[in-house]
Amino acid sequence: MQALLVIAHGSRRVASNQEILDLVEILAAKTTHYITIQAAFLELANPSISEGIDFCVKKGATEVIVLPYFLSAGRHVSEDIDNALAPKREEYPQLTITIKPHIGAANGMAEMLLNLAKG
Amino acid sequence: MQALLVIAHGSRRVASNQEILDLVEILAAKTTHYITIQAAFLELANPSISEGIDFCVKKGATEVIVLPYFLSAGRHVSEDIDNALAPKREEYPQLTITIKPHIGAANGMAEMLLNLAKG
Repeated sequence: MQALLVIAHGSRRVASNQEILDLVEILAAKTTHYITIQAAFLELANPSISEGIDFCVKKGATEVIVLPYFLSAGRHVSEDIDNALAPKREEYPQLTITIKPHIGAANGMAEMLLNLAKG
Repeated sequence: MQALLVIAHGSRRVASNQEILDLVEILAAKTTHYITIQAAFLELANPSISEGIDFCVKKGATEVIVLPYFLSAGRHVSEDIDNALAPKREEYPQLTITIKPHIGAANGMAEMLLNLAKG
C-alpha cells in the first residue's frame, strides 16, 4: 500500500503553503493508486515531515514515496529531508520510505518550460 | 525576434546555479524558435536580471519572454521580478517584456509529479 508524500520547503506566506496543498488535491483527483497523498513541509509550516509520515502510516501505508518539491538539489534536498526521515525510519522499521529525485531534475521540466513560454 | 529569459532565485551553492544553466542548455537544444535563451538570477548569482535583459537585447531580441523558475508565487514572483524589470522597461522602451506564470503554476506539474513517483 503506497502513499505519496510531497515535501515542500514551507513559507511564512499562507498562500504559498496553500499552493502546495492545492497541488496535492489535484494529484489526488488524478489517481487512485495511492492510499493517501499528503503534503509536508521542511520548515515554517505544518504538517512537518514527521507528521506527514505518521499520517501515511495511520492510513495504512507500507511504503511512502517521497517527492521533494524543490527546483534545485541544495542542502535541503541532499541532507535536510534525509535527516528528517531518519528517525521515522527507526520508528517504523517495517515501512519502506523511497525518496525520488527533486522535481527540478524530473523528465519533462524543459518541455514544461517551453510550453509555458508559448502559452 | 523573441528571447527567453529563465529567472531563478540564485543560490550560494555553485552547483545549484549550474543546474539552472544546464537546464537552459537543454532548452536551447530543444528549440530554435528563440534568438537566445538565457538564465538570470534574482539574488546571489550572476548574471543578474538586468544583465540577462541586456544580453537578450544585444542578441537582437524585440521581445523577452520571462519564465519565473519558482515553485510558489511568493514575494519574489509577485514583486521582486517586476521591480528588477521596471528599470529595463524604461531603458528599452521598444522592447516587449512578457512575464509568464511561475513554473509551479504551469499546466502539467501534477502529471510530472505523478510520473516522478512512478519512475
